[in-house]
Amino acid sequence: MTDYNKITEDIIFDIEDAVSGNVYVGEEINEDFFHDEMPIYGSGTPDVLVDIHSAEEVAAVLKICNENKIPVLARGAGSGLTGAGVAIKQGVMLNMQPMNQILEYDEDNMVVRVQPGVFLNDLAMDALSKGYLYPPDPGEKFATLGGNVSTNAGGMRAVKYGTTRDYVRSMQVVLPTGEITNFGAVVSKSSTGYDLKDLMIGSEGTLGIITELTLKIVPAPKATISLIVPFENLDDCISTVPKLFKNNLNPQAIEFMERKIVLASEKYIGRETFPKKIDGVDANAYLLITFDGDNEDELYDVLERAAEILVENGAIDCLVADTPNAIKDAWAARSSFLEAIDSQYELLDECDVVVPITKIAEYVNFVNEEAKNYMFDVQSFGHAGDGNLHIYTLSNEVDKHDEFVEEVDKFMDVIYKEAYALGGKISGEHGIGHGKLKYLKGFEGDLNTDLMKGIKKVFDPNQILNPDKVIGL
Amino acid sequence: MTDYNKITEDIIFDIEDAVSGNVYVGEEINEDFFHDEMPIYGSGTPDVLVDIHSAEEVAAVLKICNENKIPVLARGAGSGLTGAGVAIKQGVMLNMQPMNQILEYDEDNMVVRVQPGVFLNDLAMDALSKGYLYPPDPGEKFATLGGNVSTNAGGMRAVKYGTTRDYVRSMQVVLPTGEITNFGAVVSKSSTGYDLKDLMIGSEGTLGIITELTLKIVPAPKATISLIVPFENLDDCISTVPKLFKNNLNPQAIEFMERKIVLASEKYIGRETFPKKIDGVDANAYLLITFDGDNEDELYDVLERAAEILVENGAIDCLVADTPNAIKDAWAARSSFLEAIDSQYELLDECDVVVPITKIAEYVNFVNEEAKNYMFDVQSFGHAGDGNLHIYTLSNEVDKHDEFVEEVDKFMDVIYKEAYALGGKISGEHGIGHGKLKYLKGFEGDLNTDLMKGIKKVFDPNQILNPDKVIGL
Repeated sequence: MTDYNKITEDIIFDIEDAVSGNVYVGEEINEDFFHDEMPIYGSGTPDVLVDIHSAEEVAAVLKICNENKIPVLARGAGSGLTGAGVAIKQGVMLNMQPMNQILEYDEDNMVVRVQPGVFLNDLAMDALSKGYLYPPDPGEKFATLGGNVSTNAGGMRAVKYGTTRDYVRSMQVVLPTGEITNFGAVVSKSSTGYDLKDLMIGSEGTLGIITELTLKIVPAPKATISLIVPFENLDDCISTVPKLFKNNLNPQAIEFMERKIVLASEKYIGRETFPKKIDGVDANAYLLITFDGDNEDELYDVLERAAEILVENGAIDCLVADTPNAIKDAWAARSSFLEAIDSQYELLDECDVVVPITKIAEYVNFVNEEAKNYMFDVQSFGHAGDGNLHIYTLSNEVDKHDEFVEEVDKFMDVIYKEAYALGGKISGEHGIGHGKLKYLKGFEGDLNTDLMKGIKKVFDPNQILNPDKVIGL
Repeated sequence: MTDYNKITEDIIFDIEDAVSGNVYVGEEINEDFFHDEMPIYGSGTPDVLVDIHSAEEVAAVLKICNENKIPVLARGAGSGLTGAGVAIKQGVMLNMQPMNQILEYDEDNMVVRVQPGVFLNDLAMDALSKGYLYPPDPGEKFATLGGNVSTNAGGMRAVKYGTTRDYVRSMQVVLPTGEITNFGAVVSKSSTGYDLKDLMIGSEGTLGIITELTLKIVPAPKATISLIVPFENLDDCISTVPKLFKNNLNPQAIEFMERKIVLASEKYIGRETFPKKIDGVDANAYLLITFDGDNEDELYDVLERAAEILVENGAIDCLVADTPNAIKDAWAARSSFLEAIDSQYELLDECDVVVPITKIAEYVNFVNEEAKNYMFDVQSFGHAGDGNLHIYTLSNEVDKHDEFVEEVDKFMDVIYKEAYALGGKISGEHGIGHGKLKYLKGFEGDLNTDLMKGIKKVFDPNQILNPDKVIGL
């Protein structure tokens, strides 16, 4: 536990002197900055909010805060789901959104240089207009790239293209002392000392503040096809997935969903997109698969091979969506899961546990069975291609908030334990933030968390950067 | 600078008690263990060599050495090129080669669990016999996988498949205290605290000792084709490479070579494999490209598109090798570069600098021009797809050894400076070891090297693990 100093008027003057943009104090700060997208982890009110326009401004503010032992938190779009972007220790919040420029494409080296406040969606669209794909594709398109890198955001396309980590070639970082440095390089290959770049990725603003990113892009695929594949049960559905990989069919995305959440989502969007009964057989689980490639003919070959494997392994049907509209339609229900859940429940918590892909069915069955012992509903869906599951605990008993929180704690502890027993991890893509902090030490163990604490102290000896996130000291 | 204790008879007894295998002391140690494959970086004689058979044995020996402040070095095949595997501070050398078991394939999750002393070649062959490719393919096939991970070895196929880093899912690690832990998981996606696994990769035995690895494998490609592509000059040759990537032709390997080294290599292997003059035009630079894929027809399509791009951009010819023997032949000269050089020179040093792929020609021209100022010959070749260059300084003036070393130092300093000016790094795949230590701080800067030193102290407070490698304290 660290003691921080309270911010003073003098410090605020110093910060105002150091930056070109607005500085908001106390009640001037818009309450949007008090929470992220998972309100159950609580809120936090920064003392000061600073609009940031350059690395030099970050450096100047960090220097002031480090000398005065004031907590600092860099905030992107506030779209996180773990409380990482919430100022639970007050102090200074850096609003990185004004740093929103796509600086330069280097098409021959296939990289793009961006500021950290650029929205994922803006880079994705801009790259596409030039014929390139920026592959990471988390559900929230209006997260900032700085935030994506800080959580190692994953998303649907991770199964083919990898996570955000795989697309960060280099970054400019401001250390808590206000010194500016660079980790990584444009080059794709390096064995030049310890891997500081990968340490920063996923460190959720606790080791340094990212002020510029050089990201890898790839040629945009020229054709895309999706398949909706109903199964009678989850076990058949999940056990088919490895067979697609072994046959090198290389899907861009492969999601699984159970009947219950599909029904909820279709009710929310107001139309039916998934078949519920085929030739008298009830569909209780689905795969939603997308393939991409450089030409349609090749893709239809892939499709044919995939369909054969799917049907051989128990798929009741195999519905092809091969026009942009049909693909959009097929994905509409999946894209609306979170909103559908959100619209139906007042109390909500979530985990994004990850297990080996061969263990998904066993794990989901375990979770569904365990869920019967609690006051809340449980709904889950996830990435069948990488084992990353989103498990929601849901209730409308608003007056039982504390009981809900307590029971969720117990439930999460049980299901994390099972995930680790199966070779999994706490978080596949959302990170640890504040919400999962208590589980990290328990499940990653003292040895690993002590190493993490040591690393935190090396980068941030005064512990001013995003305190009590990822790793508590 | 740290003071270590000398090993005593009591310590040797303790070590003998702790392990099941042989313990060699002083003159009993075979001199193969005194050096690696780059003798210019000197030799070192361990006091004790211990054959290691398990993580528990590593743990027991580390505990003894940590308590007694004795340097410890884990040694794989000794095939490194930077002195990382040389006991320059004496102490205890752990011979990891007895830990050479391929433990278990998990084909559904597409991973294989191995001991660190398995040779790359043994895993590659074994995986292939099961229909899988272990993609990392550094030149030296009889390196151990523990060594490959410890240097983040790259190799020819990195351009399509990435480096060793991209294939390490998890590892068991013994810390200097003798405690055993695990970093990573079978899962492909994780945002669960700081990335300790990637910190270990490329840390050259300075942070912990790897005692088990879970490595990703992929379905083996079913067809492979190579192209020999002569150009009149290096600039045309290099500037063509990004065009292949932009057109998503995704070569498995793409090497460039200049006429001089091809001639030297062909002389060494005793036959001609590359055309020297086509339709009256001299070939002065070559690309050697391999494509792989799932069926031959697709591959011929790729070949056709590639050939069109190559010829449009100045290739004088485009020779196809599409049978296993023809492919082997095409690669024979390239594979023999190092042996050819080795056979012709007594004094030899090397760097494996990496620059952005668009800067290769500019950089090689700079290096060739700069080389004129020194007593030695310079020959270079490299990976055109990732900018990783192998630049050799070569001389037969054995009596001028000290002058050679001094001039090489100056030369390396100049060419590293130019690499950094172009956005490059000291090492693409060989690592820092002992040989490049002096350059790391100069080129990576105080800020980054201080962070690395801090990290080293967190993992290894007594600094017993492979002292004065990667980062000197």
